[in-house]
Amino acid sequence: MEYRIEKDTMGEVKVPVQAYYGAQTQRSIENFKIAQDINRMPKEIIKAFAYLKKAAAMTNNQLGVLPQEKSDLIGKVCDEILEGKLDNEFPLVVWQTGSGTQSNMNVNEVVAYRAHVMNGGQLTDKEKFVHPNDDVNKSQSSNDTFPTAMHISAYKMLIDVTIPGITKLRNTLAAKSKEYMHIVKIGRTHFMDATPLTVGQELSGYVSQLDHGLRAINNSLAHLSELALGGTAVGTGINTPKGYAVKVAENIASLTGLPFVTAENKFESLAAHDAIVEAHGALKTVAVSLMKIANDIRMLSSGPRSGIGELFIPDNEPGSSIMPGKVNPTQCEALTMIAAQVMGNDVAISIGGSNGHFELNVFKPVMIYNFLHSARLIGEGCVSFNDKCAEGLAPLEDNISKHVNNSLMLVTSLNTKIGYYKAAEIAQTAHKQGKTLKQTAIDLGYVSAEDFDNWVRPADMVGEL
Amino acid sequence: MEYRIEKDTMGEVKVPVQAYYGAQTQRSIENFKIAQDINRMPKEIIKAFAYLKKAAAMTNNQLGVLPQEKSDLIGKVCDEILEGKLDNEFPLVVWQTGSGTQSNMNVNEVVAYRAHVMNGGQLTDKEKFVHPNDDVNKSQSSNDTFPTAMHISAYKMLIDVTIPGITKLRNTLAAKSKEYMHIVKIGRTHFMDATPLTVGQELSGYVSQLDHGLRAINNSLAHLSELALGGTAVGTGINTPKGYAVKVAENIASLTGLPFVTAENKFESLAAHDAIVEAHGALKTVAVSLMKIANDIRMLSSGPRSGIGELFIPDNEPGSSIMPGKVNPTQCEALTMIAAQVMGNDVAISIGGSNGHFELNVFKPVMIYNFLHSARLIGEGCVSFNDKCAEGLAPLEDNISKHVNNSLMLVTSLNTKIGYYKAAEIAQTAHKQGKTLKQTAIDLGYVSAEDFDNWVRPADMVGEL
Amino acid sequence: MEYRIEKDTMGEVKVPVQAYYGAQTQRSIENFKIAQDINRMPKEIIKAFAYLKKAAAMTNNQLGVLPQEKSDLIGKVCDEILEGKLDNEFPLVVWQTGSGTQSNMNVNEVVAYRAHVMNGGQLTDKEKFVHPNDDVNKSQSSNDTFPTAMHISAYKMLIDVTIPGITKLRNTLAAKSKEYMHIVKIGRTHFMDATPLTVGQELSGYVSQLDHGLRAINNSLAHLSELALGGTAVGTGINTPKGYAVKVAENIASLTGLPFVTAENKFESLAAHDAIVEAHGALKTVAVSLMKIANDIRMLSSGPRSGIGELFIPDNEPGSSIMPGKVNPTQCEALTMIAAQVMGNDVAISIGGSNGHFELNVFKPVMIYNFLHSARLIGEGCVSFNDKCAEGLAPLEDNISKHVNNSLMLVTSLNTKIGYYKAAEIAQTAHKQGKTLKQTAIDLGYVSAEDFDNWVRPADMVGEL
Amino acid sequence: MEYRIEKDTMGEVKVPVQAYYGAQTQRSIENFKIAQDINRMPKEIIKAFAYLKKAAAMTNNQLGVLPQEKSDLIGKVCDEILEGKLDNEFPLVVWQTGSGTQSNMNVNEVVAYRAHVMNGGQLTDKEKFVHPNDDVNKSQSSNDTFPTAMHISAYKMLIDVTIPGITKLRNTLAAKSKEYMHIVKIGRTHFMDATPLTVGQELSGYVSQLDHGLRAINNSLAHLSELALGGTAVGTGINTPKGYAVKVAENIASLTGLPFVTAENKFESLAAHDAIVEAHGALKTVAVSLMKIANDIRMLSSGPRSGIGELFIPDNEPGSSIMPGKVNPTQCEALTMIAAQVMGNDVAISIGGSNGHFELNVFKPVMIYNFLHSARLIGEGCVSFNDKCAEGLAPLEDNISKHVNNSLMLVTSLNTKIGYYKAAEIAQTAHKQGKTLKQTAIDLGYVSAEDFDNWVRPADMVGEL
Repeated sequence: MEYRIEKDTMGEVKVPVQAYYGAQTQRSIENFKIAQDINRMPKEIIKAFAYLKKAAAMTNNQLGVLPQEKSDLIGKVCDEILEGKLDNEFPLVVWQTGSGTQSNMNVNEVVAYRAHVMNGGQLTDKEKFVHPNDDVNKSQSSNDTFPTAMHISAYKMLIDVTIPGITKLRNTLAAKSKEYMHIVKIGRTHFMDATPLTVGQELSGYVSQLDHGLRAINNSLAHLSELALGGTAVGTGINTPKGYAVKVAENIASLTGLPFVTAENKFESLAAHDAIVEAHGALKTVAVSLMKIANDIRMLSSGPRSGIGELFIPDNEPGSSIMPGKVNPTQCEALTMIAAQVMGNDVAISIGGSNGHFELNVFKPVMIYNFLHSARLIGEGCVSFNDKCAEGLAPLEDNISKHVNNSLMLVTSLNTKIGYYKAAEIAQTAHKQGKTLKQTAIDLGYVSAEDFDNWVRPADMVGEL
Repeated sequence: MEYRIEKDTMGEVKVPVQAYYGAQTQRSIENFKIAQDINRMPKEIIKAFAYLKKAAAMTNNQLGVLPQEKSDLIGKVCDEILEGKLDNEFPLVVWQTGSGTQSNMNVNEVVAYRAHVMNGGQLTDKEKFVHPNDDVNKSQSSNDTFPTAMHISAYKMLIDVTIPGITKLRNTLAAKSKEYMHIVKIGRTHFMDATPLTVGQELSGYVSQLDHGLRAINNSLAHLSELALGGTAVGTGINTPKGYAVKVAENIASLTGLPFVTAENKFESLAAHDAIVEAHGALKTVAVSLMKIANDIRMLSSGPRSGIGELFIPDNEPGSSIMPGKVNPTQCEALTMIAAQVMGNDVAISIGGSNGHFELNVFKPVMIYNFLHSARLIGEGCVSFNDKCAEGLAPLEDNISKHVNNSLMLVTSLNTKIGYYKAAEIAQTAHKQGKTLKQTAIDLGYVSAEDFDNWVRPADMVGEL
Repeated sequence: MEYRIEKDTMGEVKVPVQAYYGAQTQRSIENFKIAQDINRMPKEIIKAFAYLKKAAAMTNNQLGVLPQEKSDLIGKVCDEILEGKLDNEFPLVVWQTGSGTQSNMNVNEVVAYRAHVMNGGQLTDKEKFVHPNDDVNKSQSSNDTFPTAMHISAYKMLIDVTIPGITKLRNTLAAKSKEYMHIVKIGRTHFMDATPLTVGQELSGYVSQLDHGLRAINNSLAHLSELALGGTAVGTGINTPKGYAVKVAENIASLTGLPFVTAENKFESLAAHDAIVEAHGALKTVAVSLMKIANDIRMLSSGPRSGIGELFIPDNEPGSSIMPGKVNPTQCEALTMIAAQVMGNDVAISIGGSNGHFELNVFKPVMIYNFLHSARLIGEGCVSFNDKCAEGLAPLEDNISKHVNNSLMLVTSLNTKIGYYKAAEIAQTAHKQGKTLKQTAIDLGYVSAEDFDNWVRPADMVGEL
Repeated sequence: MEYRIEKDTMGEVKVPVQAYYGAQTQRSIENFKIAQDINRMPKEIIKAFAYLKKAAAMTNNQLGVLPQEKSDLIGKVCDEILEGKLDNEFPLVVWQTGSGTQSNMNVNEVVAYRAHVMNGGQLTDKEKFVHPNDDVNKSQSSNDTFPTAMHISAYKMLIDVTIPGITKLRNTLAAKSKEYMHIVKIGRTHFMDATPLTVGQELSGYVSQLDHGLRAINNSLAHLSELALGGTAVGTGINTPKGYAVKVAENIASLTGLPFVTAENKFESLAAHDAIVEAHGALKTVAVSLMKIANDIRMLSSGPRSGIGELFIPDNEPGSSIMPGKVNPTQCEALTMIAAQVMGNDVAISIGGSNGHFELNVFKPVMIYNFLHSARLIGEGCVSFNDKCAEGLAPLEDNISKHVNNSLMLVTSLNTKIGYYKAAEIAQTAHKQGKTLKQTAIDLGYVSAEDFDNWVRPADMVGEL
């Protein structure tokens, strides 16, 4: 490869001749040879930086500390980043400095040098028209930009991917719940036969879980909407012009179309990332819900002949490389694996969040990496599960009615007629003798055939629909 | 020990002659010999059951399915439970059936038998005036009572212990923040010297964390306010009189003084405990905050001679059994251990929450055990930390001013005057030569003495206060 | 309550007049009002301290720094502690100083004062014959005694409770595996019907899991056998006589009958508790195994009419407060709740273990509290599960043979005869048409009836037994 | 893009015309649109499959069920995969079926079709010379191949990356420990000044931690060495020739140079992945150690003027985008972030491991994804930390001796001379009056100047070196 020489405050560095990045990015590549092929800083963070660098340049210009020309150039490069044109210029990994300084400098360098080239300069020019620190990073510090990028990318991912994905699945399940509201089936508690409910009722529980999960995510957005920018090095806002913090948050809100505001307390914003911990707690709650839902669906569709077999789910692919004709609940499996991942990510985030010290938390990259991972997995996992499984889900009515009509737990409707103890005796006797409830109830002399038929009706045992 | 014979649907059991509980409680004692001396079902759950059994009896009476006399008797026993008079009658452990059925039956038995005795009967009477299943458990199932008791106890613990504890600490820190708002100190990022801020600003970050944490807890209360009661066995409300679910929630709200309502969807309420998962996510967020705060305080008070030594914290006890005169930040240690416990409890709760199946989650006891543990530890831990540490916290101004005046990072205020690169050169040179910034700045010819004094003032670097 | 006055280096304290403990214990009671009724320092730690204080006194005497008379008195009090005679004298909680100093002092005080009384003195005597620090704590520090007590109690719990409990269950399952080795049943993968295996083979997998788990626990004992004692304050062994560390470990080994040795590196022993983290990792592995085993057993015994119903498990108690005659897999539920708890405890322990600083880890109490909790829950949980469930487990052969004979996955044995694709076509066609494999195979013209009967035999599909 | 038509048992699929993969791979791409750009199945798994497919072909040939020609062709393609020539042919993600069936089929398809082309055929030929299921997957199932690939890739990563990385760091720390064994410094416990030790002693604790961690990893290798291959669909070995399981493990051992053996119990090998859980427990223990070590080093190097400042660590990059001249402990930050990640991964793995059901665990991909991530992060993280931080670490002797000579805790050496209480009084008085210990000791009349000088020598307080 061909190189050019770049310089920072520590001296000279050889950089690939075509790269828009400079010395500090190159140092980081060399200093952190850790999982470089699989753990690049998430692209959502880079795009969040593009919003904030553009907003900062606009604000600096509006407040009179950056010339219009430079501000415009910076904005144009940021637009290129948002369009994905400069994706290869951001090679750094998550496992770098814990403040994300090197990714901030990576963006500063790329914006400055690309701006210089846009402006007619050469990458090899010793002086660049736009300076990474003095212009692109003006009125900023890594310490306030990186957490700002964390909030922008997290909020955006939730709005663009996570919430729509969950909502899509929720809506499908709600429609199925309504559609199957009158199909009576056996209930199961402790994996054991219990009193009946309807397929629609069972599905309505999942809908309610997701509704509560969506509410929990929404509750966490307020804290995420608070931006650190303007706090600079330690939260005091040193080296920012008056009015900067409020204004730059407004500009970010305007560029992203999301309701960002400046954080009331910048010391928290730099030193702690409780907003990420809190919001990921909501994601983890949804993961817990999804694990339950996907487990139920795969168990209800188990079989085809030696399982429960009450639900049909679509066959999307051959299921086994050795057992011909086997079809498996693969979407359930992907979703439950995602749930496990999100629960693990939650611990990584909590540990990172708890280990901030003094004026700065330096677990920023690992926290946002795990957050974005979870938010995306849940969103995309829900869509996949929705499109390839939930939408095709249907009751297998033969099995459903066989199970419910057979059930000993229909005896529960006799509690209020003959008391719990006698009802129990009927069920236990029927179980031991392998007989029907009705026959046993009559044999024991506790209920007449007529009363039994009047009192024990599955469809009457499911409440109001 | 002397015994009497009790009976349930499975046959006879020997029960201690004086015990108010009966056969099913006794079976559970014998069937679950697991940590019986340390893991009793939390007393808060038993008290929550007392509220709900009383409310259920009232409601059953109001709806015409239970006579006034029985309802009154049940209510009186519940009052005794709430007063702590029957504490020894609840010997069961967390590690029982996952629906908490045995604890529900324990309460049913104690209420019935104690009511029978109150009514002039004998524990040895074959027939009791009040029946555990047919009267005390009327219109109920373990499957809806236990989750109801979970929400009552969780909500009450948050209101009575957790929120007041956090608030107390928050208020102390807020007062200290105000008091020390003008004491300028060095900032620290990456454990390294950074630009200055004030003691009050630093403390304000903690206050902001706790404020956000309190908001997160409050956000989770809505889901916790939903009660499962009325869902009975599988959520359909089988064997409940019309209007029961709404009414019984009103009665519980009235008895507890807390805004409980009947859950809109009972299928979720039995089969999932996402409300517990969600609310504990908020507690975990607070644990993360407390870990940060307590760590900072112990590091800032480290020394007395070879640490940072910027904060005084009270000496509450001799610190070392071998090093005479040593005093340690013991309250910080208790609080950070609590934080670790809460983060662990969170995982236990999430795993329990994710493993519900079909119509019932059977990790109920382990979930509420961990929840109540965390909620109490945070509440009582904050009070202890507040009373024995935070209230006595004070700046050690000699060390504080020595550190800030010495700092190389004051150079940051020169960025906007002479540019980042020259400022960096001053700092690095001063560090290498062990000189002051001012001398170095002058020696390098970048700043005059007069300009330096005008530009580099710690008190001007902390922003608006 | 009546009080007497006690003194420590910080001044006077009022102590209950009859208490054997003194000023520092009393201070801790007052300073840490956190979960005092539920989170006392585990009694196993107190007993471990008794072993070590006795061993230390013996060693000090053997090395000439403590008179025989004092050593004997100390030993006698330690024996009383081991016999449980002084249980009420140890009221301190887990949530105290993170080095466990206060529990060490609690033991020092009780041993000294009880020894003084044994020696004919009065609790109110100003000078005691045996001094808590200068005699009982001689050649020790909290910093080396508490981690020593951690290792003694952890090792002992594993040997006395955990390993025997797991082994008992393992042996029952191994016997059942042998007994049912020839009962052919359908296999299930992805919850879907698969090729057959035998009940004994299925159970042998559980046995293998537990065998590997036991090996993992045993592998972790070596690190636990290393004792910190002799490291004193920071690991250097200051204030210990020559030869003390090796000798005192020998004495502890001799008193406990366990192969303890002095840790080669005392700096690690005080500053890190990786041995606890490592050994709990093994416990967590076993918890993961138990979750799998208990889940399988409850699903295989699901029904009685609408589940899988291939395993009988004992009915230990009535299962439902509303559904008469219902019996639930309650031992499975207790065991899976324990598994969830252990997985949570693992996180608390890891967080504690990772947060040691410089010469001391100050998360000692929370680490050992969680460790002992897990070790005991697993041990006692396995015994309960064994005695009340596994021993009574039996195959339900009717259901088992119905399922296996019905299965479409028997087609797999045709792969090597007619190829995967044609075999798949047979299975899919049979499934769609609801016919038997044999009929379909013949109809499609791929296999003759005779060949089918020769090739497709469940009993031939299970390999060597 | 141009397509060709491929077929599987479910019908036709359009596949990119140049792709070596076929219908099932393509279906998976379309069915699992989840994080496709960031979560490809780890390349180590693909390479492990190459070893096992080659070994299976060899074994099948040796046992007479696969012709030499096909076996050779399969082997050649596997070699190409190992050389990285076919990297683009494996586009599937982690979030697929939980048995990894689709990645197994991806490999089967690529091997078969590439072999066909190698053999002179065309990708568009309807019949291929080598068949994915009947030849490449012969005597195999996804259910035994994927767990085999898990163990191969996990074992190899530990041997190739993790253990060497940890060992490299361990050796550097051991050399530094020896080098600085005689530099006396102050000890710190509870973040407070304590009795002295040497720099070398402090470092020796880290070495001991890593030695124990390496032992823990080594202990876990035995379970990982057991291979599932030969168990096929459910562990019974259906459709394998006699002697296959043992022979194929020998062939894998021979190809990889690692001591793999066939698992004694195949039912465990398919249904549970406790070996992964257990081995990751060891990795997590190391993560806990690394968190401690990296935290210590960054705190000991804190400053330069307002921290502890006892260690020099190399300046690898400019530290701050706003504070000129700031240098941060970035390698410590990367390593502690890695530790947080590994602790989170551990939970994901445990949850996956605990949720196997019946004959198969279907959290295989998420488990191995997290395992390989952790194993690689630890290995590469240790190398980075070693090369860029540990190797350059050096004591800052001025600060070290200032701290130790100043310390009040030197008073501990007086315990055995004048008793704990008087020693405590000296330390407390000196602290209050801001005087030296010596002066205070003399003033209080407890020790003469001469005795003090003889008794209180830091270098005598560090034990044998």
